[in-house]
Amino acid sequence: MPNKMKIAIAQAGGPTAVINSSLYGFLKGFSHCDNVQVYGIYGGIAGLIDGRFIHLNHRAVGEYEWLQNVPGAALGAGRKPLSEQDIGRIILQLKEKGVSALAIVGGNGTMWSCNQIAETAREMGYNLQVIGIPKTVDNDLVETDHTPGYGSAARFVAHAVRDLAFDLESMKNFENVRVVETMGRNVGWLAASSTYFRNSPDDAPHIVCLPEIPFNMDQFLESVNKVHRRLGYAIVVVSEGLKDKHGNSVSEIELSKSRDHKVLGGVGGLVSERITTELGLSSRYENLGILQRCTHFMVSNQDRLEARMVGEKAAEALLEGKSDIMIGLQRGLGHAMTSSEVPLSRVVNQERSLESQFISDDNFVPIASSFKEWLYPIIGETCEYGRMEMRPHVKAIGDMK
Amino acid sequence: MPNKMKIAIAQAGGPTAVINSSLYGFLKGFSHCDNVQVYGIYGGIAGLIDGRFIHLNHRAVGEYEWLQNVPGAALGAGRKPLSEQDIGRIILQLKEKGVSALAIVGGNGTMWSCNQIAETAREMGYNLQVIGIPKTVDNDLVETDHTPGYGSAARFVAHAVRDLAFDLESMKNFENVRVVETMGRNVGWLAASSTYFRNSPDDAPHIVCLPEIPFNMDQFLESVNKVHRRLGYAIVVVSEGLKDKHGNSVSEIELSKSRDHKVLGGVGGLVSERITTELGLSSRYENLGILQRCTHFMVSNQDRLEARMVGEKAAEALLEGKSDIMIGLQRGLGHAMTSSEVPLSRVVNQERSLESQFISDDNFVPIASSFKEWLYPIIGETCEYGRMEMRPHVKAIGDMK
Repeated sequence: MPNKMKIAIAQAGGPTAVINSSLYGFLKGFSHCDNVQVYGIYGGIAGLIDGRFIHLNHRAVGEYEWLQNVPGAALGAGRKPLSEQDIGRIILQLKEKGVSALAIVGGNGTMWSCNQIAETAREMGYNLQVIGIPKTVDNDLVETDHTPGYGSAARFVAHAVRDLAFDLESMKNFENVRVVETMGRNVGWLAASSTYFRNSPDDAPHIVCLPEIPFNMDQFLESVNKVHRRLGYAIVVVSEGLKDKHGNSVSEIELSKSRDHKVLGGVGGLVSERITTELGLSSRYENLGILQRCTHFMVSNQDRLEARMVGEKAAEALLEGKSDIMIGLQRGLGHAMTSSEVPLSRVVNQERSLESQFISDDNFVPIASSFKEWLYPIIGETCEYGRMEMRPHVKAIGDMK
Repeated sequence: MPNKMKIAIAQAGGPTAVINSSLYGFLKGFSHCDNVQVYGIYGGIAGLIDGRFIHLNHRAVGEYEWLQNVPGAALGAGRKPLSEQDIGRIILQLKEKGVSALAIVGGNGTMWSCNQIAETAREMGYNLQVIGIPKTVDNDLVETDHTPGYGSAARFVAHAVRDLAFDLESMKNFENVRVVETMGRNVGWLAASSTYFRNSPDDAPHIVCLPEIPFNMDQFLESVNKVHRRLGYAIVVVSEGLKDKHGNSVSEIELSKSRDHKVLGGVGGLVSERITTELGLSSRYENLGILQRCTHFMVSNQDRLEARMVGEKAAEALLEGKSDIMIGLQRGLGHAMTSSEVPLSRVVNQERSLESQFISDDNFVPIASSFKEWLYPIIGETCEYGRMEMRPHVKAIGDMK
């Protein structure tokens, strides 16, 4: 009896609402295989370094269907900078366990890690297949039409901004401005998704600030003032990753007092404060926060299916002996999404900005109308809102006494 | 041909996700009436003062079904302190229009306004029926089992806190604490709803701070430290209305620079900062914000039905000639909810705190288990989450070579 093929899967980086669907798809991809042993790695990259293996029963994949409905990384993820020594240790751990194939679900940092692990294994003479499974709400990975996780986050952002706008519009005699901050790191894909329900300049959001366009506070405040004068209120969307003209982040949040522990964020609070002090308008800061990457209740079904598909395709590729690739998504006719295999070397050390074809020269909402078409097949189910016709009452014939 | 009975409805205060369902129910309550004219008031109390009447076609109520799915107050709401002069003006506006019956959808402030308007009309010798239709996410109205709007907000809070917890648990090697701030004004009903999915001390939230219990920073920090030491992470829920031992608000947000324009809020940021500086733990502040009162995508269907019912019952009561009442909800056998009629005089100038029967003496999560039973029929549809079994891999017989 030949040795079982031993395979490991880890989840890394910040979770998405559908990250576990990729894990489910991965297990499903092996469900017909007798001669395979699948391990889950507990705790992401740190778990790989420490060799924390969990037995996953791919033959009973039905027992894992719940993975498709649960946010957070079911295996544990986390962030960890990876040293050369760490990589060597990962390979020794895999070798000791007899694991010859590794898949990691993650974003940009993870694809870099996959590439490093594969190269180091070769240098160490250990035969190891490595495949990256993409996930990120930021949509900042290259060589894929979009990333699993983005669709659900975009769905949440679009609906949340519209709901916040309907609420504010009805409260405009009490409040003037809401500044909604989205995730997205250094790229504007998520901020752009806030425009999905916008059909006219009067619809929210009225101002969108992208990391791709250097932020100018004076121009911004002037825009807010103009919108408020015209409509009596304003919904502003700012991406957490806004940069000034020198390319420096406008705002970062210190998660703890150690110097390395910063994340992007807080720019919404900063500009909201300026709206209050400099324009004399009331303004409220609404940070959509971590819910963007974990609300199971706004998952795009298409996103879930795609997340599952890339997991399943990664399993198939490992069974075919492939390595050093990321499973991507490509858009076919009628927006049908299929998977692709992309060399990791073409993915690493790059960041996909909101593409210039989707950026317009509008001073308020610089999102081209083609963006909505692009987002349409990804964002999942949506609904239209009605609106009260506000024509004042004029005496009609039926009212004559 | 007798004069038509002229009826007006306004929406006031901060919206809820189902405030428009009450408007729909109100119109539905008149849909069989030929000899009635229903006006909507545009812009809440300010609209009443200025006499902004909108024609609503109660005979074509089917055209308003969309109201049940749209957040924000469809007629416009807002907040406005009401002077004696304002009230006189409201009555003159109604008189000029020939309106003899008024319903206002609102919370505590609105019930006070209803009562004042009714009394002043009597003093002025104008025959005016006035009925209050309850709505508030804070659930701080007395004489009703709960308020329409609360169920949907509770549903959002419970699900959001669980999702944030699953996300943090999987990131605990990177982040330690999340401080989630809920609405609720001076009462802890919404903060309490965050415990709905909590079945053991290890489940989130691990610490809940209520306005009903004076906030002690030192004890709080000690609790956070204990939970973190035990679990490696902590989910903290704080109500926006936390009070110190002197009854003063721990934190308020200035919406603008005018002295009156403050709202409760910000306490989560304040305690998160202290967790970072004093405990040396990483901590992130997640303010659930305005989404709590406007996310159409987390509406509790039961809440929607109840909001519609109180609107419809208000219409019926007006047709029966009733006045000076609020339509309440009462809980029957098997948690069935029916409506009740409560004298406005018993409702005004009171605030319903989280009841002592629902407060336990637990130092971490002081919510009695009976609260979950109470919330069960209100919170609407929920789902259970699965969890990965984290037993480490031990070599099984099938693995022997």
